[in-house]
This record gives sequence, C-alpha cells and structure tokens, in this order.
Amino acid sequence: MTAHPSGQNQHHHHLEKARTQVIELLSRQAVERDLVLRAGSRKQDVVASLVLRQQQTALEQRLAQFHPADVAFVLEGLPPEAQRIAWSLVRPERRGAVLLETSDVVRRTLVAGLPAEDIAQVVRPLDSEDIADLLASLPDDVRLKVLERLDQAEQTEVRSVLAFPPGTVGAEMAFDFITVQEDASLETVQQLLRRRKPLPPHTTQLFVVNRPGELCGLLPLQKLVTEEPDALVKDMMTTDPVFFFTDDRLEQAVQSFERYNLISAPVVNLHRQVVGRVTVDSVVETINAQAQRQRLEEVGLSEDTDLYAPLRTSARARWQWLGINLFTAFIASRVIGAFEDTVVQLVALAALMPVVASIGGNAGNQTVALVIRGLALGQLGPNQLRQMFSKELAIAAYNGALWGAVLGTVTLLIYRNLALSVVVAAAMLLNLLVAASVGMLAPVLLQRLGRDPIRGSSIILTAATDGMGFFIFLGLAALFLV
Amino acid sequence: MTAHPSGQNQHHHHLEKARTQVIELLSRQAVERDLVLRAGSRKQDVVASLVLRQQQTALEQRLAQFHPADVAFVLEGLPPEAQRIAWSLVRPERRGAVLLETSDVVRRTLVAGLPAEDIAQVVRPLDSEDIADLLASLPDDVRLKVLERLDQAEQTEVRSVLAFPPGTVGAEMAFDFITVQEDASLETVQQLLRRRKPLPPHTTQLFVVNRPGELCGLLPLQKLVTEEPDALVKDMMTTDPVFFFTDDRLEQAVQSFERYNLISAPVVNLHRQVVGRVTVDSVVETINAQAQRQRLEEVGLSEDTDLYAPLRTSARARWQWLGINLFTAFIASRVIGAFEDTVVQLVALAALMPVVASIGGNAGNQTVALVIRGLALGQLGPNQLRQMFSKELAIAAYNGALWGAVLGTVTLLIYRNLALSVVVAAAMLLNLLVAASVGMLAPVLLQRLGRDPIRGSSIILTAATDGMGFFIFLGLAALFLV
Repeated sequence: MTAHPSGQNQHHHHLEKARTQVIELLSRQAVERDLVLRAGSRKQDVVASLVLRQQQTALEQRLAQFHPADVAFVLEGLPPEAQRIAWSLVRPERRGAVLLETSDVVRRTLVAGLPAEDIAQVVRPLDSEDIADLLASLPDDVRLKVLERLDQAEQTEVRSVLAFPPGTVGAEMAFDFITVQEDASLETVQQLLRRRKPLPPHTTQLFVVNRPGELCGLLPLQKLVTEEPDALVKDMMTTDPVFFFTDDRLEQAVQSFERYNLISAPVVNLHRQVVGRVTVDSVVETINAQAQRQRLEEVGLSEDTDLYAPLRTSARARWQWLGINLFTAFIASRVIGAFEDTVVQLVALAALMPVVASIGGNAGNQTVALVIRGLALGQLGPNQLRQMFSKELAIAAYNGALWGAVLGTVTLLIYRNLALSVVVAAAMLLNLLVAASVGMLAPVLLQRLGRDPIRGSSIILTAATDGMGFFIFLGLAALFLV
Repeated sequence: MTAHPSGQNQHHHHLEKARTQVIELLSRQAVERDLVLRAGSRKQDVVASLVLRQQQTALEQRLAQFHPADVAFVLEGLPPEAQRIAWSLVRPERRGAVLLETSDVVRRTLVAGLPAEDIAQVVRPLDSEDIADLLASLPDDVRLKVLERLDQAEQTEVRSVLAFPPGTVGAEMAFDFITVQEDASLETVQQLLRRRKPLPPHTTQLFVVNRPGELCGLLPLQKLVTEEPDALVKDMMTTDPVFFFTDDRLEQAVQSFERYNLISAPVVNLHRQVVGRVTVDSVVETINAQAQRQRLEEVGLSEDTDLYAPLRTSARARWQWLGINLFTAFIASRVIGAFEDTVVQLVALAALMPVVASIGGNAGNQTVALVIRGLALGQLGPNQLRQMFSKELAIAAYNGALWGAVLGTVTLLIYRNLALSVVVAAAMLLNLLVAASVGMLAPVLLQRLGRDPIRGSSIILTAATDGMGFFIFLGLAALFLV
C-alpha cells in the first residue's frame, strides 16, 4: 500500500473494483441458479459454473491481499446479499480482524444466524478486548454461548471488559501492556522484552511498578536503546505519568490524549495497580465515531442507521423526529390560526410571516452552534456565559436592524404599505432577539439537565422561533395594522 | 497531572481557578490605576500595590506548573484584556509552546502589536514546522520580518514548509525524523541513536533508506531492543511501508492513519527520498479541527469565529448566511403571494402551509445527513447511489403517508373540512418526496462540482422544501378547494 497521489487513488480504485466484482458474482450466481432451476444440469451450465468458480477464486485472492480494514471498507459499501458473498470469500483466519473494522450494523448482519461455535472460531484469533468489542454488539444469549466456547483465561478477561459500562475507560482498555519493576536494570528489562517479542503494537513505553505493584512511572522504549544497560529503571523513567482509572469517562481520556499528545497510557484500579492500557488508535476511533454520531443526532437519527437496513426499520428510525417536529410545527400553526381574522384583513401577512420565522431559526442556529462548540471546548464558565449572552443579544440587535431594514424596504416596494413594512422590520428584529436568547439558553440548560444539547437544541429553537415569530409579527399587525 | 475522576476534576478546577485569578488581578489593577489617578501615590496605595505584586507572583508560579496545553486552555477562556495579562505572566521561554496550543484567533490577539524581534524570540525555541505553523497565522509582512530574524538553517526549513499549500501533507510535516541505512547493523544504529538522544517524540520507528537515499522500509524501534545487535537493518525492517508525498492531501493521510492505526509515517519527495514525517498527533488535531469546522460551516460560520471578537466583526461574519437565507425565504414568500386570492378565500391554508414546508425541511435534512456520511466514508458508488435514491423515495412515501394521515386527521377535527384535510395530507406526502429527492441530489451534485456539500446542501434543501411545499399545498388548494 502506498500513498502516492495516483497510488492512493489506484488503491481506492482496487477497492471499488472488488465491490463491482462481488456484485457481478452475485448476478452470475443468480443466472446459474436460474439455469439449473429451468433446465436441469446441461453442458453449457457446467461451463457457466466453471466460469463462476474461477471468478470466485480470483476475488478470494484479491481480498486476501487487502488489509483487513480495506476488506471491511469493501463490505461496508455492498448491499446485504453481496455482503454475505464477499464475507464467505474472506479466509476464515482473517474474519475476526475484518469484523473488528466494520461498523456495528454490518457486524450484526454478518454474524446474524451464525451458530455460536462459528462465531467463537472467528473471534478466537483476536485479543480479549477486541473479542469483548465484538461480543458487545451481539444479542445477550448469543454472547453468552460464544463466551462459553472460549479458553478459561480469555473468558475471564473478556468478561472483565464487558463488565465495565460502555463509555468508560475500562470498557475500551486493552490487556497487552508490559510492566517492569522500578529497581530492575535496563539490561534485565531488555532480556524480558526479548522473551516477549514481538511486542504489542503501539508499545512506546513500559509501565513501571514498585514492589506492591503500584504504578510509579513510565519507561520510554527509546531509553533502552540510548542509555547504558546497567542504569536502573527508576532513574530513567518519567515520573508523574498521565493515567486513568477504569471508571473514568472515555471522553476524559480522549481530551488528555489530545491535549498531551499521548500514544498510550496505563489504566489502574483503585489500588493504583496497572490493569490495562488505552492506545491512541482507540482514541482516534472514538473521536471519529463521535463526529459521525453528532451529525446524525442533529437530525434525530442514531449512529447505527444503515444504508441497507430494511425499509420499514429505516422509516421507523425517522418517525420520532418527524413526529416531534410535526407537533411543534402544529403548535406554531395554531398561533397563526388564532390570528385568522387579521390575516383575512391583510393577506400580505400570510406571505411575510414565514420569512420572519425562518430567519429567526437560521440566526438562532448560529448561536446554538457557537454555544455547543464553547461547551465542548470547556470555554464557557459563568463569567464567559454572561459575556457571551450580552454579545449574542447585541449581534442579534445589529443584524435584526440590518436585515429588518432590508425586508422592510422590499416589503414597501411590493405592497406600498409603510405601516406594514415597519411592522415586519420590527418583528424581524424582535424575533432575532428571541432566537439569540433561546439559542443561548437551550443548549446550556439541556447540558445542565444532563441531556444531550446537540439533539434537543434545534427542536426547542425552531419551536421558539416559529411560534414566537408568528406571534410577534401577527400580534404587532393586529395591534397596529387592522 | 493525574486522571483520577476526582483528580481530573480537580485538575480542571485548577485551570478554572487560574482564570478567575487572572480576572481578579485585572480588576485589582484597574482599582490601583484608579487610586493613582485620583490621589497620587499615598501610603495605602503602596500596600495595595504590594498585594497586587504578590498575587501576580503567585499566579505566575501557578501557570509555570501547568502543561503548555493547559496554559493555552486557560487563555482561551479569558476575555482579551485578561488574556493579555495572563500572557505577560507566562515565562518567556514557554511562550512559544503555549502559543502552539492556542487557536488561531487567540494567537493573533496575543502577538498582535508585538515587534518582530519579540515574536522571533518567542518562536525560536520551537521546531521548524511549529514555527511555520505559528507564522502561517500572521500577516505577510510580519511573517517576513520574523523569518529574517531566525537562523539561516531554520529559515530554510520554515520557508520550505510555508511553501506547501495548506491542506497538503507537506504543510504539516515535521523534520525531526531519523533515517538509517539498510545495510547497517542494529548495533551501528544503536550507536547512532545514543549520539542523537533524546529521540524526537513519537519515534516508534526509524526510516530505512538505501544508498541513493530512497525510502525502502521502516525499522520499528523495538527491533533494536528485542533482536541481536549484529542483525542487519534490511533483514529486520518492514518493507512496503505506508508513506506520503509532500503534495498528497492531508485528508488522505488522515484516512490512512485511521485505517491502518499508524503512529508516524515518512513523507517523501518525487525521488522517493525522505524529506519529513507526519505523526498521529497532527492527525488527531486535523480530525478535531474538521469536526469543529463542519459544525460551524453548517450554519454559515467560519472556523475562527471567536467568542471575544469585536461585536461588528462577529455580526458581519453572520451577514452572508442570513442574507442568503433571507433571499430564499423571500422567494418562497412570493410563491405564497401568488396564491393570495386562494388564501383569502380559505384562511386555514395560511395556518397549515408552514407545517407542510417545515416537515419537508426536517425530513430532507435527515436524507442530507445520511448522504454526507456516506460520501465521507466513501460508501456511495454509482450502484449504491441508485439504490439509496429509491430507498429514500420509498421511505419518504411511507413516512409521508403516515404523517400526512395524522396531519389530515387533526385538520379534519379542527376545521371540519374533509377536502382540506385530504389536500393537506397529499401536500405533505408530495413535499416529502421533493425533500428526499433534493436531499439526495444537492449534496451529491455539490460534491461533484467540487463544492463543500456541508455548507450548501441545507440552503438548497430549505429553499426547495419551503418553495415547493407552499406551491404544492396552495396549488392543490387552488385546484380543488376554492
């Protein structure tokens, strides 16, 4: 695998080609099935069958050359039936590694219906924490059956990972760390490592413990290379290391990895004994998953929405969101209903009211985005919140005056009604102030209440800017125009 | 720094406390200035002055104990004046490291007005690529003046990084890599490393080159520890390494780091000679920056929107977005204007039309989010696009029928008008089909045209669901109801 501009594109092209081949294979199989069903086994069917088998072998070999992550990438982009065919062409000993790189949904599709023994065989070559990761996405009964079929030692480790609630460091930690005694010499450590080779991936430092087994420092691997063999570990180690407890939140770990540029960090129990480690690759995965999840959550979808989930499942996943929005939109529409008399007397109001509501929503969403960023970066203490609040109101006043004047002018040109254009401009200004206030308060309050500000804020905001937008505009109109 | 649940919280508390102290210091300075202005220097002012100096020293010491990233965190959350005070308390030799961890906006605030010589002094302790990173956020003339004040060797490296366009691997690469000859023995390599210690951070592997200096493999540092000293590099190295060219897109590098769990990778020129390296920490930074940027771009804001930017700057940053939205909202409102006669005859239409438009927007945004995720993950080839398109239409039909029926029923209960409720249900169904189509096509087309699908899709979608929503609903009403 190279990353040449053309090389990288070519690599991508190979992956796309593998997908196409799978789909061709699928249609050929269908044709063959068809032939067999229609005419029994005839000579030309034997030929067709041979071609099919040849194609299958070629594809199998192609997949065997891909990195497991690349095979997973190919699988992700295939419809379910083709997915199953491609999966059957992955060599059994690599299936675990491939499964590890797929999304939860594809995983479930691939192992659905497999007997527990087959699943156990697929996961057996993996590390305990990876097994736990895979088993976590299986139904409870299947998980137990698979667990029973593993080695005793592996079972214990897997169970211990599964015992930690998702989102904690314990649930993401790996067991492939190496500890050394603080009073050992570098030479002794080197001998230990020679016996343990190859070292676990991402081993850039060894965890140093004292006699009672408590973490007391980190020994960078490079010290073994650059320092004298008779030096003692405790003189070469870095003290005061960043470490985590098993029940620390994973986000805390992610923040520390980002802030202090870590590659790996020890995980300890309450006695400060090392029980595992977290590595930067699981952190990168977590950050990515978060970014993906947030984008979907903003529109009321969940992370495991699959391109190829059955129609009904997909439709149902969107019901709740649309239902809530229908409800708030309907409430806003009742505000309009209350002013029906006013609208009949001046029908221009009907055309202008959605404009007032919609700009409020857009401006408010800008405020929401800034607040959510501030909350995520930990920039918003009480002081800053107060300051930001008055600034957002000032910006709303500023922009409300500007765009209100623009809308008022255009209204005057179209409807030749000065009072109407003043009312629409005033309504715009006021609704932008509402938008700024709700845009500030909604995410902050949701966060305080322990809810996800990303998911709820836009619903609350839109309900406010629509409802209040209609109310302010039509209310002013009822007072001053009719 | 520990990461104990209480420890981590306490750490955060320390950072917050430092911020409060800075703000207290600021107000005390103001008080003192006031006293001096009002009464000249009197005895109690001398005391006040002493207290002030004491506080200043305490804060200085506190900041000196923080990790540079933590100092940056403290600075980020302070208003500009307090930021300047805190910055003046950071020891000169640490200022470069702190600056490196701040956002672009805070950076610009902190160095604004500093003479070039002072900036040069701040950045001098840093690596060339970090200096380039800092200089890139300065105005052209300042950048040149600072550059002139650096060592000749450093100047050359910094200039070479600055020469690469932002977003390429070359612009992010570091120079602190170590290459070894393929025909050297491990012992020779070890001697080389002892002379070069301490090794650059994140050195988990050495880059192996042949006589002409071309990259031919990677030597994991652990081989030096676990293998015999007389073994040859070329027998111990991993061949076929992942590498990048200087003009590769940074996103390609990010993808490869994610997919293959890399810590660092060599960057080569067109002759395959190693000229730099990329490390996982800059990848983590890039991923994070992307996630932050996307969230803001969705609402028309740019990345460097600062909590504490001057009011006018902040307001102006939002003008364009609100202006575009005002324009599309106004176009939609002209659709309503065209049906004024219909609305006057049946004023219930005015109340119901925003509901139809709004649900269309919400449903369409779900489709947009799925398409953008699919595009980002590279899951959407032509085959998949076609499949997704028909699926989205089917879901829209399904949900349109469901929620159309709900809205129709509620309409019937309120207005006792069967024809009206059938029309509103049909309009809802049709508008969801419009939403699904535009929600699919907008991001795909924007991407094909080389534009950012995140920024433009929601504007196009809302324009379509509003305009078409009003048109379909009022059009059907004009045909069948009045």
